Amino acid sequence: MNTYGKLFRVSIFGESHGPAVGVMVDGCPPGMPLAEDDLSRDLDRRRAGARGTTPRKEYDLPEIISGVYNGYTTGAPLLILTRNTNIKSSDYLKLKDSPRPGHADFTALKKYLGYSDPRGGGHFSGRLTWGLVAAGTVARKVLGNVEITATLVEAGGSENIGESIERALSEGDSVGGIIECSVKNVPAGLGEPFFGSVESEISKLVFSIPAIKGIEFGSGFAAASMRGSEHNDVFIDTDGTTKTNNAGGINGGITSGNEVYFRVAVKPTSSISKEQKTFNLKKNKISSLQIEGRHDACIALRMPVIVESAAAIALADLMLQDRGIYAERKS
Amino acid sequence: MNTYGKLFRVSIFGESHGPAVGVMVDGCPPGMPLAEDDLSRDLDRRRAGARGTTPRKEYDLPEIISGVYNGYTTGAPLLILTRNTNIKSSDYLKLKDSPRPGHADFTALKKYLGYSDPRGGGHFSGRLTWGLVAAGTVARKVLGNVEITATLVEAGGSENIGESIERALSEGDSVGGIIECSVKNVPAGLGEPFFGSVESEISKLVFSIPAIKGIEFGSGFAAASMRGSEHNDVFIDTDGTTKTNNAGGINGGITSGNEVYFRVAVKPTSSISKEQKTFNLKKNKISSLQIEGRHDACIALRMPVIVESAAAIALADLMLQDRGIYAERKS
Amino acid sequence: MNTYGKLFRVSIFGESHGPAVGVMVDGCPPGMPLAEDDLSRDLDRRRAGARGTTPRKEYDLPEIISGVYNGYTTGAPLLILTRNTNIKSSDYLKLKDSPRPGHADFTALKKYLGYSDPRGGGHFSGRLTWGLVAAGTVARKVLGNVEITATLVEAGGSENIGESIERALSEGDSVGGIIECSVKNVPAGLGEPFFGSVESEISKLVFSIPAIKGIEFGSGFAAASMRGSEHNDVFIDTDGTTKTNNAGGINGGITSGNEVYFRVAVKPTSSISKEQKTFNLKKNKISSLQIEGRHDACIALRMPVIVESAAAIALADLMLQDRGIYAERKS
Amino acid sequence: MNTYGKLFRVSIFGESHGPAVGVMVDGCPPGMPLAEDDLSRDLDRRRAGARGTTPRKEYDLPEIISGVYNGYTTGAPLLILTRNTNIKSSDYLKLKDSPRPGHADFTALKKYLGYSDPRGGGHFSGRLTWGLVAAGTVARKVLGNVEITATLVEAGGSENIGESIERALSEGDSVGGIIECSVKNVPAGLGEPFFGSVESEISKLVFSIPAIKGIEFGSGFAAASMRGSEHNDVFIDTDGTTKTNNAGGINGGITSGNEVYFRVAVKPTSSISKEQKTFNLKKNKISSLQIEGRHDACIALRMPVIVESAAAIALADLMLQDRGIYAERKS
Repeated sequence: MNTYGKLFRVSIFGESHGPAVGVMVDGCPPGMPLAEDDLSRDLDRRRAGARGTTPRKEYDLPEIISGVYNGYTTGAPLLILTRNTNIKSSDYLKLKDSPRPGHADFTALKKYLGYSDPRGGGHFSGRLTWGLVAAGTVARKVLGNVEITATLVEAGGSENIGESIERALSEGDSVGGIIECSVKNVPAGLGEPFFGSVESEISKLVFSIPAIKGIEFGSGFAAASMRGSEHNDVFIDTDGTTKTNNAGGINGGITSGNEVYFRVAVKPTSSISKEQKTFNLKKNKISSLQIEGRHDACIALRMPVIVESAAAIALADLMLQDRGIYAERKS
Repeated sequence: MNTYGKLFRVSIFGESHGPAVGVMVDGCPPGMPLAEDDLSRDLDRRRAGARGTTPRKEYDLPEIISGVYNGYTTGAPLLILTRNTNIKSSDYLKLKDSPRPGHADFTALKKYLGYSDPRGGGHFSGRLTWGLVAAGTVARKVLGNVEITATLVEAGGSENIGESIERALSEGDSVGGIIECSVKNVPAGLGEPFFGSVESEISKLVFSIPAIKGIEFGSGFAAASMRGSEHNDVFIDTDGTTKTNNAGGINGGITSGNEVYFRVAVKPTSSISKEQKTFNLKKNKISSLQIEGRHDACIALRMPVIVESAAAIALADLMLQDRGIYAERKS
Repeated sequence: MNTYGKLFRVSIFGESHGPAVGVMVDGCPPGMPLAEDDLSRDLDRRRAGARGTTPRKEYDLPEIISGVYNGYTTGAPLLILTRNTNIKSSDYLKLKDSPRPGHADFTALKKYLGYSDPRGGGHFSGRLTWGLVAAGTVARKVLGNVEITATLVEAGGSENIGESIERALSEGDSVGGIIECSVKNVPAGLGEPFFGSVESEISKLVFSIPAIKGIEFGSGFAAASMRGSEHNDVFIDTDGTTKTNNAGGINGGITSGNEVYFRVAVKPTSSISKEQKTFNLKKNKISSLQIEGRHDACIALRMPVIVESAAAIALADLMLQDRGIYAERKS
Repeated sequence: MNTYGKLFRVSIFGESHGPAVGVMVDGCPPGMPLAEDDLSRDLDRRRAGARGTTPRKEYDLPEIISGVYNGYTTGAPLLILTRNTNIKSSDYLKLKDSPRPGHADFTALKKYLGYSDPRGGGHFSGRLTWGLVAAGTVARKVLGNVEITATLVEAGGSENIGESIERALSEGDSVGGIIECSVKNVPAGLGEPFFGSVESEISKLVFSIPAIKGIEFGSGFAAASMRGSEHNDVFIDTDGTTKTNNAGGINGGITSGNEVYFRVAVKPTSSISKEQKTFNLKKNKISSLQIEGRHDACIALRMPVIVESAAAIALADLMLQDRGIYAERKS
């Protein structure tokens, strides 16, 4: 199911080596300024190029196909895409019988019965997150002065991120990382108890990003070894400000007005140039596998803007829902 | 939004001290045997009673209101509820001006403008998970021979769970815990890339459970300090069995046929008998707060069956979706 | 799928001769006064009793199970039900092998494989519209001063409704009818182009009511023989008031502020006491069928309040959606 | 809301004079052959060109952007679009202050606050039905040997369609029409009681098509003047075949295996070359209006394939849902 959201709705499409990848955004309020340049600012942060990211140059220029007129959103569905260029598919086709460890090759085969596009990972490619970032830019505009900032705080178990990546690169290997995300100025009252909790919605979107292995809000896994007297955040004013923020800005699934804070774990890139083993379905035995092509040594490097986008999309949808059901009486 | 699912759809309702709590399940295939006794088996595991859980006795007898005829599901929506009994609301009403730390009192006030039912936590009560467990029983029947088992593996930072809880109890305090969940015999091919990934759906449901602070699949947060060469699970046969299971049984959002494995962090119960501080909205200053009533010293003790139910519901819905879209060509 | 709506969401459940029928309403704004008496006012209009309706007396007293506290909606899901009483199931069980003409007996068998509850039509019973009417009462409160009025304008092809029904009754037969519905004070701007058009949403709900065979908006089927110059409604002021109302108050799927107007066709009650023919699945031949029990000679008599409720639910959901996406900039 | 469907999901986008219009289709089973030529066959039937349709030549060549690989659907979302060419926007811009009677100009202004794209009707244009037809082609492939045929049976109140249109054309006017649609070989058991009834789903989609004013199934509005003894369709065999088909192939919202049959009313084209009156918002008075540009004298001429597509989409989604929930036990 490639659509997320109830009112602010985001659908992604495309394959890594097909004509284009992109996103449809529906439920976008009319009258918001939106131009290709606005999109490029976030998309550039996602782009390859830094040490440790794939040297493939994707000139990810966004094209707005619908939903904008005279520089403003119209209220009609937005369709934004980018043409795929600089494609070298031959790298991948030879892997057909050797499902790559850590990749979706095997599960795609099981689910799509051999019909899915194998070139560059097809629809499973991390390239599909381009659409998440484009939708994230729109979501931030819906959110107004809410500030969302994600940072890579650790890679390969080390806080010296550069060094950790260099070492992996030199060995044809890859490293994982940890990203922190903080959301400031989020109004109190967003989210729903149970299935529409802020944690439910953010985690659903964050786990849509390939390579994410875990998420924790506020105190997270540390909460498991804490006492209630220590974990409970003491309220200190009428705005609901708390002394500590073990709650991560969310109580009962609903934002309290305190900073929303969460951390995500990113696995090391599955594609590595080092030789690996896998089961060869044709030869019917475990064989060696050498993956060629261009890869990120640390996919987490490109992730902060994608994680921010996931949070922005979740919160924008919750904000519109909240406004729809509760706004009249609040104002 | 109190409904989860696309085909197998679960909606919960009720307040802790209202007439009843319960669940509606729609999209349930006809012809499955279902009786109140089937439900009670799982519901009893959720019930209070063990050392460290609230002494309130809830005779949680389930009543099937619709969707079952002559002992079999009919295909029409199931409505299952349990009447609330043994209610002592006076414990809670005096807390009106003192939002309890760690609770949803403050966020409920902001969202529902003072209209939400404060008695026993109202709709925010952990008691609402009764409906999740009842729906989980139905979901397991949809899943056939899929085996879902969750275990509390740690409480208060200690593997000696009993001791950890006793110590907290004696100090009027509470502890958190960690629950592991494993799903065996899950068919390959469930889940969707991106928004409908198995991790997205399970995490969305797991974060619907009050007090959950984090979730990780397979290697989880440990992946962040691993190398790709170490993290990639080597395939060893045509069924996609892997030597290790860092993936947690999921690649590209889709089950591989390997065991699905995840861990969740549970915070310490927010209600403790120890004196606490909070901001008194009437007195307009920080004041002392003494919470009376009956509380779980370790809410995580009652959680395994709830976590299993969340996983069962997510997988049952994904299984029906998969069957709808892909089944014909697979058979 | 037993749930309607995006923000204001309505789910019905129950069987005619099971323990209860009812409705869940989610997405209901907090702070609206709601009591059993409010519900009874509309429910009484739906009830049997008039000449031409079944003599079965359903003391349809509504019970609010959740979502109301101290006389006001809380914002949590509403569950409203009524216990079934005065049940005589033996009337129906003997029809098992003889699918009644005009009923869902045969299609239920095909869909639910023999597991559906046959007593009194089970989940297919017109009694399920009780829940629609209860939800309609809530929807009207969301809509504020919008006025929805439906009237039976014709039965059995005659405007003399009473006479038409008497004649059918005396022959053990039944008649259909036509209902007009008008919605006044509806704000301009509700609805969406295409899939969320006002006509799409109202018709989806109206065709959820058993026995409806057609719907037309504004000029309706008469439009097919009109000229554009005659059909186009001339605007006469800045509020968008039009001289004529062939549009039925809707242009491009969106309300214009003019009266929303539609008509629906109701078929004659399928259950008649007159002897009929049907295929006997056991005897494997066409046989005579005599339906006993209590029936409405003109089900359309009880329909106006149900049609009003359908319109109210559709418009309440569209109003909340509109407020969510567009409200901020409008105010 | 620009998305329809639960499993087979269709989202349309675009503006008449923007870069492109198109459709996204998600939930499409993998392994179905699909090429631009398949799409063109249906799209050509929708195209302008016949006497009475606009002389604007839209070379509606479809471009498949995603979801197809090596000539087969992959299971990933389909994106299909057509670039807009042959655009003359100047025709429309001068109408800014004079909302055209029968058009969405006024309601768009109210809903989108002046931001919607006015060129050629923008997102409200009948051109958006291009996407419905493209999705319809895909839906028919999902439906296998189900045959859907719609025919224009009447225009301007006359069965001599050609003559009726010629007369209107010569007077600068337009005419409405009536379309019949029949669906053969539809399996018994599709659809759900109440909100997911076949009538609910087909009508929701049919009213998404601009200019539709009414829909009736089987006996339709004629049922209102019939007796039950006359309207009830007698079953004549074990397959549920009925002697008559007043039910239109649907009982209790579910297909019976008999032909599904419905009729829709189409209003006369709103754009006519004849001079009209409207309220001029700038001059603040009723003024004359002359609409230039190219128009269909009878939009109903192009509608049959669009109506077929609407039915195909609704039934494809219901078929996948049915297969998901009920299939296992049926096979």
